Amino acid sequence: MRSGIVHLLLAGGALLAHGAPAQSAPAVSRAAKAVHNRLLTLDTHLDTPANFARNGWDFAARHDALKDFAQVDLPRMKAGGLDGGFFAIYTPQGPRTPEGNAAARDSALLRATAIREMAARLHDRVELAFTAADAARIAASGKTIVYQSMENAYPLEGDLGLLATFQKLGVRMVGAAHFLNNDFADSATDPKGAEWGGLSPLGRRLVQDANRLGLVLDASHSSDAVLDQMLALSATPIILSHSGCRAVYDHPRNVDDARLKALAAKGGVIQMNAYGNYLADIPANPERDAAMKALNARYGDRDALTPERTAAYIAEREALLARYPGSERTFDQFMAHMLHALKLVGPDHVGIGLDWDGGGGVAGMEDVSAVPRITEALLKAGYSEADLAKIWSGNVLRLLSAAEAAASPPAAAGAGG
Amino acid sequence: MRSGIVHLLLAGGALLAHGAPAQSAPAVSRAAKAVHNRLLTLDTHLDTPANFARNGWDFAARHDALKDFAQVDLPRMKAGGLDGGFFAIYTPQGPRTPEGNAAARDSALLRATAIREMAARLHDRVELAFTAADAARIAASGKTIVYQSMENAYPLEGDLGLLATFQKLGVRMVGAAHFLNNDFADSATDPKGAEWGGLSPLGRRLVQDANRLGLVLDASHSSDAVLDQMLALSATPIILSHSGCRAVYDHPRNVDDARLKALAAKGGVIQMNAYGNYLADIPANPERDAAMKALNARYGDRDALTPERTAAYIAEREALLARYPGSERTFDQFMAHMLHALKLVGPDHVGIGLDWDGGGGVAGMEDVSAVPRITEALLKAGYSEADLAKIWSGNVLRLLSAAEAAASPPAAAGAGG
Repeated sequence: MRSGIVHLLLAGGALLAHGAPAQSAPAVSRAAKAVHNRLLTLDTHLDTPANFARNGWDFAARHDALKDFAQVDLPRMKAGGLDGGFFAIYTPQGPRTPEGNAAARDSALLRATAIREMAARLHDRVELAFTAADAARIAASGKTIVYQSMENAYPLEGDLGLLATFQKLGVRMVGAAHFLNNDFADSATDPKGAEWGGLSPLGRRLVQDANRLGLVLDASHSSDAVLDQMLALSATPIILSHSGCRAVYDHPRNVDDARLKALAAKGGVIQMNAYGNYLADIPANPERDAAMKALNARYGDRDALTPERTAAYIAEREALLARYPGSERTFDQFMAHMLHALKLVGPDHVGIGLDWDGGGGVAGMEDVSAVPRITEALLKAGYSEADLAKIWSGNVLRLLSAAEAAASPPAAAGAGG
Repeated sequence: MRSGIVHLLLAGGALLAHGAPAQSAPAVSRAAKAVHNRLLTLDTHLDTPANFARNGWDFAARHDALKDFAQVDLPRMKAGGLDGGFFAIYTPQGPRTPEGNAAARDSALLRATAIREMAARLHDRVELAFTAADAARIAASGKTIVYQSMENAYPLEGDLGLLATFQKLGVRMVGAAHFLNNDFADSATDPKGAEWGGLSPLGRRLVQDANRLGLVLDASHSSDAVLDQMLALSATPIILSHSGCRAVYDHPRNVDDARLKALAAKGGVIQMNAYGNYLADIPANPERDAAMKALNARYGDRDALTPERTAAYIAEREALLARYPGSERTFDQFMAHMLHALKLVGPDHVGIGLDWDGGGGVAGMEDVSAVPRITEALLKAGYSEADLAKIWSGNVLRLLSAAEAAASPPAAAGAGG
C-alpha cells in the first residue's frame, strides 16, 4: 500500500492535501544552484520505501508525480541535488493486539528488507549508511546516501528487543508513534486524546534503549508531552524529523515556540515538513470540496487503480484544482515555517524533512527535483553557505554522531554493510 | 563466522573431515554431461549464505576451495550444471535463554537479509524462488534458483510466531534442531542424549505451524524419535535435507532402513549428504592425527585468518593428507549411501543435499563443479533420465507442492519477490 495515499486518507479532512500540480517549479538561479550543489544534502523523512515493493516500480527510473504520485527517485534526486536521506520504515498504527503487533513487526521487517534490497540492486549508485561519517564518504563516491529510520515504534510493541534487530539492520532513527496512540506514546493526532500523558512506561524504555543502541529519537507525530519527556529523559538530542511551527499554523503536528526553544537548548533540531495540511488553512469552498468528494468517490480506492487509472485520476484532480485557485498550499507557506524556526532557534537547530511520498509537497515544490528552491530562498533571506550546510545535513549528522557516541557499545555498521 | 568451519569444529573428532584435495575431480563423459544438462537440478542444503556477508566475497566470482574453502559460487554452479537449491539460514545452537534466543533471531534475520541482498545484487543472474512452480520458470530464464531454508529452529525459540515472518521473507523449509537439543526437539548428536524423547510440545506446534504456513519439514540433524513423530504428526511429507544411510555407516546423523521406508511410505525423501564424517570410517593413524592437531594449533582460529594465511593453511593440510593416503572419504563412499537408499526406497524418495560450505565434499567431488559425477554414476547404475529428473529436483518440488497445497491460506510469494 502506498504510504503517501495512506497518509492522505488517514489525515482526516485532507481532501485537498498537496497535489502534484501541472506546472513545474520555478527555475532556480545559477548562483543558488551552484551553492546547492556544493552542499551535502539530506532529507530526514522519505516515505519512498513504500514504492520499493510495488511491482515493476524502479527507484532508478525517472517517474512523474502526475502519473503515479511518486515524488522521489534517483534521477530526480540527482536533478534536485539531494544526496540522500533517511528512508522510512513506516508502519500505520493498527490493532494493539498480539496479532496486530506481529503483523506490524513483519511489515516493518519486510520494509527494511525492501530498502536493503533496493540498495543491493542499485549498488553502483546507492549505498546504505550506518554512521554519521558514512554520509560524506558516500557522497564523495557519487552514490546516494541511504539511512534507515522507523516511523512508528508499533512493530516493537510485541518485543522491544526488536529495536536491536532493526539497529543491526541499519536503522538509526526511531519515532515513537504515528497518527494514533500506541503502547509507547501518545500521538499528536489521536482523536481520543492523550492516553499516557506522554510516554508510557514502555515508551520510557524505548528512550533508554534507543540511547543505548545509538539511535536518534524522533518526536514527530508524538504529542507535546512526549517531546517534553524525551527532552528530559534522552541522553542525546531529539529530532523532529518532519514537523512545522505552531506559531505559523496552529496544528497539533506542529511545535510551539517554547518547545522549539527547549528542543534547541538540548541540542536538538526541527526538520521542516512540507505536508500541506500542516502548513496553512485554505479558504473554504463547499462547491470545490463537493466536486473533489465526487471525484474521489468515482475512482474509489487509489491503491487498487491501474497505472492508467491513477494517471487519469491525477489529471482530473489537477484540472479540478485549477478551477479553484488558492486551493493548494504553496512554497511560500512552507518557507514561512522554516524562516520562523530559523529566526527563533537559528541555523544550528533547523533542517529539512519534507515527507516526500508520505503526503509532502506544495505548489511550487512538487517533487524532490525542486528542493534547490529552498536553498535559493534561504540565501535570499540572508543565510550563509555555512548556515545552509548545517541546515541541509550538518545538524542531523551532529545528532547522529551524538547518538553514536552515547551508545554502549558504540554503534557499528549493520550486516552486509 | 563461516558455517563450514563451525561445522568442522563442532563435529567433534572431525580432524579429517572433507578436505579440498589438490587434484580436480575425474572428467565426466559427454553423454552423462548431456543428460545432466537437460535436468532441472537442485541441492537441498547449501550453507553458502555464510559467505555472503564476508567482506569482499562475491558469489558471482569464481573461487577456489583450496584458497578460501568456498565450494559454491555462480561460475562453479554453471560449470557443475546445478540450477539452484535451498540456501540455508543456519544458526548454531547457543544458550537457550532470552538473550540467546534474541541473538539467534537476529542472526537468522540478518542471514535471510544477506540471501535476499545477494539475489537483489545479482538480479540479472539469480532469482529468489517461493513456490514449486518457480523453479522451472527461473531455470528457463537462465537464472540460478534460490530457495531459502532454515537449519535449526533456534531463532524461533523466543517466539514461534517468527516462523510466519521467515515464511514471508521466503523460507520454504525448516529443520527443528542442529548439533544440540533445543526447545523444539532432540538432536541426533547431543552428547547429553535425548531431552524430550523427540519433539517438545513447542516442537509439535512447530510441525503444525510449518504445515499451516506451507513449509517443508526437515528432520536432518534431529533424533530418530523426532523423525518418527514428524511422520506421525505432519500433514505433508518430511524431508531429510542432508542425511545418509545407517545401513552403510552407523552414525546418528544417518537414517536406518526401517525409518527410511517409513519416510518413503509417507511420500517423503532423503537427500544424500556428502559430509565426510557421516559416510565411512577412515583407518586410525595416530601419527597423522598428531600432525593434523599440531597444524591446526599452529594456525589457530581459521575464521580469524587473513586470506593469505587461509590459503597457506589449506595448502599445508593438503600436503599432510597427501602423505597419508586413504585419509579422506571418497566419492564412491558417498555413492554407496545413495545407491543403498535408491535400492531400498526407489527414485521417488531419494535426492541430493550435499552440505556444500557446511562440511560437505569428498575426494573426487570437492566442490559444486563436480556434481555431474553423480549423474554419471547413477546412469552407470542403471537409473533412467526420468529417475534422475526426480532425484535431482522432482522429488523435493513434489514435497514443496504438497506443502503449498496444505497451507492455509495457500502459500504465496514473499515480499519483493
